Amino acid sequence: MKLYSFWRSLASFRVRIALNLKGVAYELITVDVDRQQHREGAYAAVNPQMALPSLVLDDGTVLTQSLAILDYLDEACPGPALLPADPKGRARVRALAAMIACDAHPLTTPRVQRYLTEVLHLDDTARAAWLRYWAAEMLGAVEARLAGDGATGRFAHGDAPTTADICLAGHALFARNQGLDLGGAPTVQRVVEAAMALPAFAATHPLAQPDTPESLRRAPTSS
Amino acid sequence: MKLYSFWRSLASFRVRIALNLKGVAYELITVDVDRQQHREGAYAAVNPQMALPSLVLDDGTVLTQSLAILDYLDEACPGPALLPADPKGRARVRALAAMIACDAHPLTTPRVQRYLTEVLHLDDTARAAWLRYWAAEMLGAVEARLAGDGATGRFAHGDAPTTADICLAGHALFARNQGLDLGGAPTVQRVVEAAMALPAFAATHPLAQPDTPESLRRAPTSS
Repeated sequence: MKLYSFWRSLASFRVRIALNLKGVAYELITVDVDRQQHREGAYAAVNPQMALPSLVLDDGTVLTQSLAILDYLDEACPGPALLPADPKGRARVRALAAMIACDAHPLTTPRVQRYLTEVLHLDDTARAAWLRYWAAEMLGAVEARLAGDGATGRFAHGDAPTTADICLAGHALFARNQGLDLGGAPTVQRVVEAAMALPAFAATHPLAQPDTPESLRRAPTSS
Repeated sequence: MKLYSFWRSLASFRVRIALNLKGVAYELITVDVDRQQHREGAYAAVNPQMALPSLVLDDGTVLTQSLAILDYLDEACPGPALLPADPKGRARVRALAAMIACDAHPLTTPRVQRYLTEVLHLDDTARAAWLRYWAAEMLGAVEARLAGDGATGRFAHGDAPTTADICLAGHALFARNQGLDLGGAPTVQRVVEAAMALPAFAATHPLAQPDTPESLRRAPTSS
């Protein structure tokens, strides 16, 4: 498989984690979003939506949208399950994942930031406030879902990592990058720490990628 | 089951369609978003995220997030499948659904519109331009995915309605409400017309709901 990815793309991070949890080998192809490579013809030919990530299967099938790719990997690949077995548990995990992947992350992607800057002429302060607002809103909403719910375990759902933890790991990183303190969301903080301690999460951390700028790059760690 | 819904909530529309396709009986409970009822204590106790829809199962389990609910209904309820059987086909349908439910719709929800108005002080013209921009962008992106793809059939994927059509029906309505002409996305237009001709789609149309304002309400139709 080939994964079109960018080190700091949080949707790419999700798929990298899942591939690593499943133990699936893949070739990583960098699409440099900072240099607008996702909007160039070569990548647009892979994914006309010009969004990351895309996963190209060995038969050439192109899969897009991180949540759809995660479900595909869970259905098609052996290895630890990314979703619990019972439908209600699956619905809980999928709802947690969708809170982040539908209701929070899309508001902060490059195409939205471009609109804020180029059309609405927001300055850096107003743009940063936008990012922080949505990061904080979802941190609070997920904490409210996880805290005091018996279904929450060592991870977001029980004691094995799921799609919810995969999405949460990226959101926690994003929130920290916006200057938020996870201490106000202690259950999220605990769950994310447990997830990031796993090799599949640590190895795929945005700061530990081959395409991470050298000034930021570090060895895989758990934080 | 009880469905917390609002007539013009497109995420509620998705779940209403799925329940009708599956032939599942449900009690409809209106949460009037125009009167901010989704932010009041009674609904926040059901869904702390204060977003629609929520589906309450007969055992009291609360399911949230429309895509998670659709997957639950497909896994737990008999009736026609909302996803194809093969993992690659499922991934294609889920990607189409996520394009709308993750990358387009969340940008246009009440909480985002509130931020645009109250924090960024956008006037009605600028707010309408925002809505139209994201409606048009995704219409084009979905058209590019569907047009000329052999997997597209009478519906978005093959000849039976799926989760992709469910999401697309709402997006097409939204795009039309923003003044867009679907003629520029002829495959989307054709597929949505086929979907809206089905009783499960027509009966759950936002303008045919018990809580639709009387001045707008109409009998279920196919357009």
